[in-house]
Amino acid sequence: MKKIVSLGEVMLRLSPPSNERFFQTHQLQMEFGGSEANVGTALAFWEHHVIHLTTFPNHEIGKAAAACLRKNGIDTQFIQFEEGRIGVYFLEQGAIQRSSKILYDRADSVFTKVDYKNFNWEEILEGTDAVHWSGITPALSQECADFTLHVLKEANKRNITVFGDLNYRSNLWNYGKKPHEIMPNLMALTHVMIASDRDFNNCLNTEFDDFESAKAGAFNKFENLKYITKTNRTSISSSHNRISASLSSRENIYHSREYDLTPIVDRVGTGDAFAGGLIHGLLTNEPQFAIEFGMAAGALKHSVPGDVLLCSEEEILEIVAGESIGKIKR
Amino acid sequence: MKKIVSLGEVMLRLSPPSNERFFQTHQLQMEFGGSEANVGTALAFWEHHVIHLTTFPNHEIGKAAAACLRKNGIDTQFIQFEEGRIGVYFLEQGAIQRSSKILYDRADSVFTKVDYKNFNWEEILEGTDAVHWSGITPALSQECADFTLHVLKEANKRNITVFGDLNYRSNLWNYGKKPHEIMPNLMALTHVMIASDRDFNNCLNTEFDDFESAKAGAFNKFENLKYITKTNRTSISSSHNRISASLSSRENIYHSREYDLTPIVDRVGTGDAFAGGLIHGLLTNEPQFAIEFGMAAGALKHSVPGDVLLCSEEEILEIVAGESIGKIKR
Amino acid sequence: MKKIVSLGEVMLRLSPPSNERFFQTHQLQMEFGGSEANVGTALAFWEHHVIHLTTFPNHEIGKAAAACLRKNGIDTQFIQFEEGRIGVYFLEQGAIQRSSKILYDRADSVFTKVDYKNFNWEEILEGTDAVHWSGITPALSQECADFTLHVLKEANKRNITVFGDLNYRSNLWNYGKKPHEIMPNLMALTHVMIASDRDFNNCLNTEFDDFESAKAGAFNKFENLKYITKTNRTSISSSHNRISASLSSRENIYHSREYDLTPIVDRVGTGDAFAGGLIHGLLTNEPQFAIEFGMAAGALKHSVPGDVLLCSEEEILEIVAGESIGKIKR
Amino acid sequence: MKKIVSLGEVMLRLSPPSNERFFQTHQLQMEFGGSEANVGTALAFWEHHVIHLTTFPNHEIGKAAAACLRKNGIDTQFIQFEEGRIGVYFLEQGAIQRSSKILYDRADSVFTKVDYKNFNWEEILEGTDAVHWSGITPALSQECADFTLHVLKEANKRNITVFGDLNYRSNLWNYGKKPHEIMPNLMALTHVMIASDRDFNNCLNTEFDDFESAKAGAFNKFENLKYITKTNRTSISSSHNRISASLSSRENIYHSREYDLTPIVDRVGTGDAFAGGLIHGLLTNEPQFAIEFGMAAGALKHSVPGDVLLCSEEEILEIVAGESIGKIKR
Amino acid sequence: MKKIVSLGEVMLRLSPPSNERFFQTHQLQMEFGGSEANVGTALAFWEHHVIHLTTFPNHEIGKAAAACLRKNGIDTQFIQFEEGRIGVYFLEQGAIQRSSKILYDRADSVFTKVDYKNFNWEEILEGTDAVHWSGITPALSQECADFTLHVLKEANKRNITVFGDLNYRSNLWNYGKKPHEIMPNLMALTHVMIASDRDFNNCLNTEFDDFESAKAGAFNKFENLKYITKTNRTSISSSHNRISASLSSRENIYHSREYDLTPIVDRVGTGDAFAGGLIHGLLTNEPQFAIEFGMAAGALKHSVPGDVLLCSEEEILEIVAGESIGKIKR
Amino acid sequence: MKKIVSLGEVMLRLSPPSNERFFQTHQLQMEFGGSEANVGTALAFWEHHVIHLTTFPNHEIGKAAAACLRKNGIDTQFIQFEEGRIGVYFLEQGAIQRSSKILYDRADSVFTKVDYKNFNWEEILEGTDAVHWSGITPALSQECADFTLHVLKEANKRNITVFGDLNYRSNLWNYGKKPHEIMPNLMALTHVMIASDRDFNNCLNTEFDDFESAKAGAFNKFENLKYITKTNRTSISSSHNRISASLSSRENIYHSREYDLTPIVDRVGTGDAFAGGLIHGLLTNEPQFAIEFGMAAGALKHSVPGDVLLCSEEEILEIVAGESIGKIKR
Repeated sequence: MKKIVSLGEVMLRLSPPSNERFFQTHQLQMEFGGSEANVGTALAFWEHHVIHLTTFPNHEIGKAAAACLRKNGIDTQFIQFEEGRIGVYFLEQGAIQRSSKILYDRADSVFTKVDYKNFNWEEILEGTDAVHWSGITPALSQECADFTLHVLKEANKRNITVFGDLNYRSNLWNYGKKPHEIMPNLMALTHVMIASDRDFNNCLNTEFDDFESAKAGAFNKFENLKYITKTNRTSISSSHNRISASLSSRENIYHSREYDLTPIVDRVGTGDAFAGGLIHGLLTNEPQFAIEFGMAAGALKHSVPGDVLLCSEEEILEIVAGESIGKIKR
Repeated sequence: MKKIVSLGEVMLRLSPPSNERFFQTHQLQMEFGGSEANVGTALAFWEHHVIHLTTFPNHEIGKAAAACLRKNGIDTQFIQFEEGRIGVYFLEQGAIQRSSKILYDRADSVFTKVDYKNFNWEEILEGTDAVHWSGITPALSQECADFTLHVLKEANKRNITVFGDLNYRSNLWNYGKKPHEIMPNLMALTHVMIASDRDFNNCLNTEFDDFESAKAGAFNKFENLKYITKTNRTSISSSHNRISASLSSRENIYHSREYDLTPIVDRVGTGDAFAGGLIHGLLTNEPQFAIEFGMAAGALKHSVPGDVLLCSEEEILEIVAGESIGKIKR
Repeated sequence: MKKIVSLGEVMLRLSPPSNERFFQTHQLQMEFGGSEANVGTALAFWEHHVIHLTTFPNHEIGKAAAACLRKNGIDTQFIQFEEGRIGVYFLEQGAIQRSSKILYDRADSVFTKVDYKNFNWEEILEGTDAVHWSGITPALSQECADFTLHVLKEANKRNITVFGDLNYRSNLWNYGKKPHEIMPNLMALTHVMIASDRDFNNCLNTEFDDFESAKAGAFNKFENLKYITKTNRTSISSSHNRISASLSSRENIYHSREYDLTPIVDRVGTGDAFAGGLIHGLLTNEPQFAIEFGMAAGALKHSVPGDVLLCSEEEILEIVAGESIGKIKR
Repeated sequence: MKKIVSLGEVMLRLSPPSNERFFQTHQLQMEFGGSEANVGTALAFWEHHVIHLTTFPNHEIGKAAAACLRKNGIDTQFIQFEEGRIGVYFLEQGAIQRSSKILYDRADSVFTKVDYKNFNWEEILEGTDAVHWSGITPALSQECADFTLHVLKEANKRNITVFGDLNYRSNLWNYGKKPHEIMPNLMALTHVMIASDRDFNNCLNTEFDDFESAKAGAFNKFENLKYITKTNRTSISSSHNRISASLSSRENIYHSREYDLTPIVDRVGTGDAFAGGLIHGLLTNEPQFAIEFGMAAGALKHSVPGDVLLCSEEEILEIVAGESIGKIKR
Repeated sequence: MKKIVSLGEVMLRLSPPSNERFFQTHQLQMEFGGSEANVGTALAFWEHHVIHLTTFPNHEIGKAAAACLRKNGIDTQFIQFEEGRIGVYFLEQGAIQRSSKILYDRADSVFTKVDYKNFNWEEILEGTDAVHWSGITPALSQECADFTLHVLKEANKRNITVFGDLNYRSNLWNYGKKPHEIMPNLMALTHVMIASDRDFNNCLNTEFDDFESAKAGAFNKFENLKYITKTNRTSISSSHNRISASLSSRENIYHSREYDLTPIVDRVGTGDAFAGGLIHGLLTNEPQFAIEFGMAAGALKHSVPGDVLLCSEEEILEIVAGESIGKIKR
Repeated sequence: MKKIVSLGEVMLRLSPPSNERFFQTHQLQMEFGGSEANVGTALAFWEHHVIHLTTFPNHEIGKAAAACLRKNGIDTQFIQFEEGRIGVYFLEQGAIQRSSKILYDRADSVFTKVDYKNFNWEEILEGTDAVHWSGITPALSQECADFTLHVLKEANKRNITVFGDLNYRSNLWNYGKKPHEIMPNLMALTHVMIASDRDFNNCLNTEFDDFESAKAGAFNKFENLKYITKTNRTSISSSHNRISASLSSRENIYHSREYDLTPIVDRVGTGDAFAGGLIHGLLTNEPQFAIEFGMAAGALKHSVPGDVLLCSEEEILEIVAGESIGKIKR
């Protein structure tokens, strides 16, 4: 059991049942999710001690959100409750040629006003093995960027391994700063990055032509950086994808097998499940295992409704081993 | 058939099924509602031509909101679509001694940025018999207050009867103005007011001791004012209420019968159903009929799930006549 | 265990969930029900051998209808399957002051074309203790009237007790005959009638002023008649009724206790549950027991969703005994 | 924005949830649909002014049907309300090798008694760009055939383009006329036909061996005819189809790409979505665009539950462009 | 914040939706509940540190049960996971005159094999203010009786206040022991008892005629006993109850107000909510407050679906204060 | 119409909706199923007279279980009702790479205490054409093994054809006997076996290397044995399987076509549907037809939710004929 700290916003997720469109539905499934907490939940399911840091409104729905994380095994004792609103996202599940659609209503959520000084960092980081952040957080507000930077500095002071999922999204970053004004400082404090060449170009304001050159550039620029990992996804349709991943150290590259996924139940959070699996693998095993475990976790997530993986370590290992795929387990 | 213009915000209403609490639910019923549009919908159901004026986000959920009004018979051709968010309210239905609970998440909705200059007032108000506004709108933003004032001025220019539901809510009015800085100008342009002494005191910054003195004060202060109406509700529990209403002109007072309501299905929008019924009654009949029709509409709404009445004129008239209460109609 | 034969149409019942109105619903609960089969089902639940005679379409939904009767314990072996449509009724559950509403779409159903010559009467009626019919059947078509008359004649030939629920409904009787052209012949072959003075007046074309005089008239006119029973219902609202009943022989009158019923879950079929209970009581016990058992069955039905009672004999007897009302049974 | 008039029956559609069979279900999803109104709805969603002409029962469910069309953007002001029943169809969704199954209960619906003299043709057809009819309507009753013929004559008088989907169904045509007694007169007034060789043979009482000869025959016989279009569907299973289409003028033939569709969410209405797309394309653009837009609309419909498309023009254009297939849109 | 330890079985609760009967339902709501954990959950909702001690099967449903307690705020770290089955209870909600019905399938659950030696008592009881047990646990098996006795001895050693709900149920106690062989030893170690005269008679093998004499006998027999509390419930029907309670010390008696409860949403767990409220009151305030807080909690539970209260301290206090009953809170 | 007797346990099946995991669900679909009764149900749907022999608890859920069989066409008159519990199985539907998962809670069910002496064998077996048993029954208890043996002996006395599905499951067989101590005696009385080489090895304690040698061994050892049948399944994923089957007599082997099944709706009971189809085929037709009919039935079951096939003979024959696959039937 490792101790891992994740940080980031957790939103109220509202989605029509089955394949209904927003226009026709009269009912919404209600869940909670957010990229970093999704990663944390996967890790908590595998018996790690995961602390998630975030802020919720101090009303009934904020408390339900925290309770949901707690149910999933997250240590929620450091979560802050403040006056304000919860970020919301509306998800319409696609099918066949029709794309899934997400409408965000997350502006001005309480989390965007997070103040890192409200957290007891000594207690939170004591004995911690890993910290996980994503590029979504510094995109939300200056307070969120400061919060992220503070965590990473404190983690580096204590030799805690820092995992970061760059996860560039152009429709965030509305508070006046450009990614390349904020991200490089965070990346310099990160040891394992999940990133594509597009992520690197957006965060560093570079123009790398391909992943290979971006990877080389990143290893060159960031001396703390030990691993870069990248997923490859082929979208035949909303219902049918193929995915694989690679993990690169400065010396080696490790490839996962490819998964053929059809019909997809829920694509949201599959990258987070992969990230969780990779962190688990790197904290407890060799790189080749880590990339296979991560990809198997990511593949399995396509079969689970909701934002989070909810699969045990044994279930992932069976997929890694290629055993009993599609058999009924009794 | 009369032509009636209503104006105000329409929110996304999200409520757990049955009597579930926010903390335990995993599903939300999805509807759209707002005080003034609820009034308009009741009137549209009785075959009046009702134009509702509001602003929705120009995304799928905004379009679904407009379509919902359209389905209910509202003329939606003048609704504006803009970038922004839709106001949301979460409703937890109470039962027995447990109160119903509403959590608002309506700040910064697109409607709060409404610009009255975007509407074609000549076309909207041509041939209009009545305008209906409520005190919720001017409480939301300066733009909303300006919008309301503009409509009322234009209506008065054209000798259109103006109905206003003062509907004071202390937790709105967050944009820097006090109700008494805004409301008196709007009330001076209003011919029929739905109000209690508490509403008058809050809107006029007065300290009337009871409804009678408030009523006298209002008739004295506002020369255009023809009728004041007020509902009386006794809450035995969340599931059991008694309601009645009175309508006062400068000379007379008309009382409705009292209704004993148990077990209540949905209390939200019952005041709006009453307002709709009163408007219908005053536009088409005598005051005594109007207060009975209004109260019957308000009583019936307690049996209908959602924000809006969805009952035909014939159904209301049966209640007014006291016929066949509780019989199965075949 | 007695052997009882019931006859009549079984319709597809479609009703919105909870208290939704037809206008707003997007889902319909699907069940099967019909007055006489409801009576038969109550009796089958109390371990009697009940044969129901009807006709269904020979398609999937007709087969599902028969299977539903079979599930509920009815002997369905004599049901006919023919080309045609199934009668449908749409039920909107009322609440508080709002009435429940039924829309019938039953014209030209396969049952209206029933041919009594298709049934093996020897086998059906062998050893039969009682036959139950209602005034709905002869109202549907000449074929249905002929069918009813044939059953009653065959039953009388074999000294089988005939129960009939007059159940006059003005919106049926559309095939050219008046009730008084058809009903008297059927009533003359009936030993126990469920009827009000209104039923007698409509079926006999009389103008009795009250139940007492109608009862006297009926006993006078029909020499086979042994019992007349009548229920009394006070509708405080759709959610709150009070009911009681009486059973009159030529010499005596037996009264049930009164039940106060609130909040009502489903009123449909409560008269049928009463009829079933009365038949059970008269076939197995004394008149005073019969009227109490019948009324207890009728009262209990108000708590069960759907057309049919689904309560065991023990449950009814507990209500008759007034024991453990409202306790949790473990 | 074009003005388009569609005409035809709209039925109550009742279908079990998920893949349940009629025999096992206890719940039915409730929607409204009909081939021509489905076409109209697709066009209304793309901001055209669409008037649909039909008749509904003047009860609550008839009003809900009209409200549903209105919600979807249809101009319902000319719909007639009469005493009678609404046509019903029961739909059981197939899967894998199991076929979908439709049970019709539409005989004697109010629409079959439609009287064209009740419609204000001057107002309806003023400024109209296109009329759409299908071969289902004249199959229902003599009144329906007369109604169709009247619309087409009036449209031709005004030089309105007429689109017709021959849509031959052998289990309709029960009122004594054969298709070839009725259809040729209607086809002679039609400018764009959706038809296969089977449709031509049935409607014209011909025996063309293949589509090419049927097409030649039709162009020869009908001098007004400008385009013939035909879809090609390969059914691998209920869950997996491949579709493409062609559009032929007298001089040219235009082919769409082929779509591979799996797993299918709802096949009903996919031909109507195609028809809507084709009409939109031909009214606003070139033939090659029209056939691609139509086929993309038809393909997308396989992913949307219900009878109607509910997809925006932008969504169709993305499919036509082959962009972002299967990506999550944020 | 107090530290409280509760102990007892938590079962899988399965109940049909709305008022459906077991015979007709096709769906079961899934929850987890058990008398003592229900008490613990109420206390955890009021911000106390509550440890619940129990055993679950080490499979997915056992883990879901623990996660459910964790979600509700319980400290689940000491729960044991073993091979075996989870106890199940099926609950059919009654209505009006129809009783609710519980079918237990709890025999041989893993909890019946609980071994007190598997728990770390030092850590569990350190700093604990109160322990809560009920008479259900020692009724289940000798192991469960031993487990209870061990906890009470350890608690008494540490001067922890012990609360016990005698809760006699005749259909448990199947392992060969009689209540009076087991219960007196446990009662002797208990400081606050929830009990009726019937409970005392069954547990002590006495024949007290009424509560007063049973109370006197108990205070006489058990020198550690400080308070006895008893609830009074009048069942007008399954939907309508009246409840009140009293709390007796050796010197005084404190009475709560009476609550009139209709229509009841869910009666299960109302006694547990009362017990939780009483414990909260006695640990933090005076006896009169405790009995009022307890009864208000018990009353509120009738409005919440499921086994547990899920109401905040503020909500209970409002009921105690009699404020805003039945108002909508915004 | 043949008369067929099946015997075995019928369990309560509880499964989360859609693809939800046990950990996240709040609702369970409720059905009843068991291997042998599933076979019987398929046969009853094809109009055979099927008697199923089992024991249910004499409470409401036991009665609901019997009613469910009765609804599906089974003759339930010989079912025993006793004190005890019903076996339960929890089913989590897998998807893509995630396996389906079954948790059994069937120990000590009433069926395990079945006593063959309680059944009237003369009446049950009179005129019976076939008996069907499976290897699950003798695995449950000595009583169940004795029950099976008794049925087979009585059947053989009367020259009834015995079908047996060996269906070896290692996690059953917990009552002290090994399969090879029990199964050979049962197999010696069986004329048609459904078995793989693994089944033979486990039941006979042999070590055959492949199906061919196992088959030869079985034909050699069991002189009554006429046919052995075996299904072949390739699991590409939980959502995608390929299946085919063969039927071997002592002289010949008959192969079915292969079916490609995606996306699978419900795999449970597909082997039982195959068995039912094979029995139907062998009782009414030639071996080649039997294996095709069986495999078509098995393939179709993958599209039907629940344990049982619910498809008519005509539907199976269409699949056998390869007609109209994936077409909408109107």
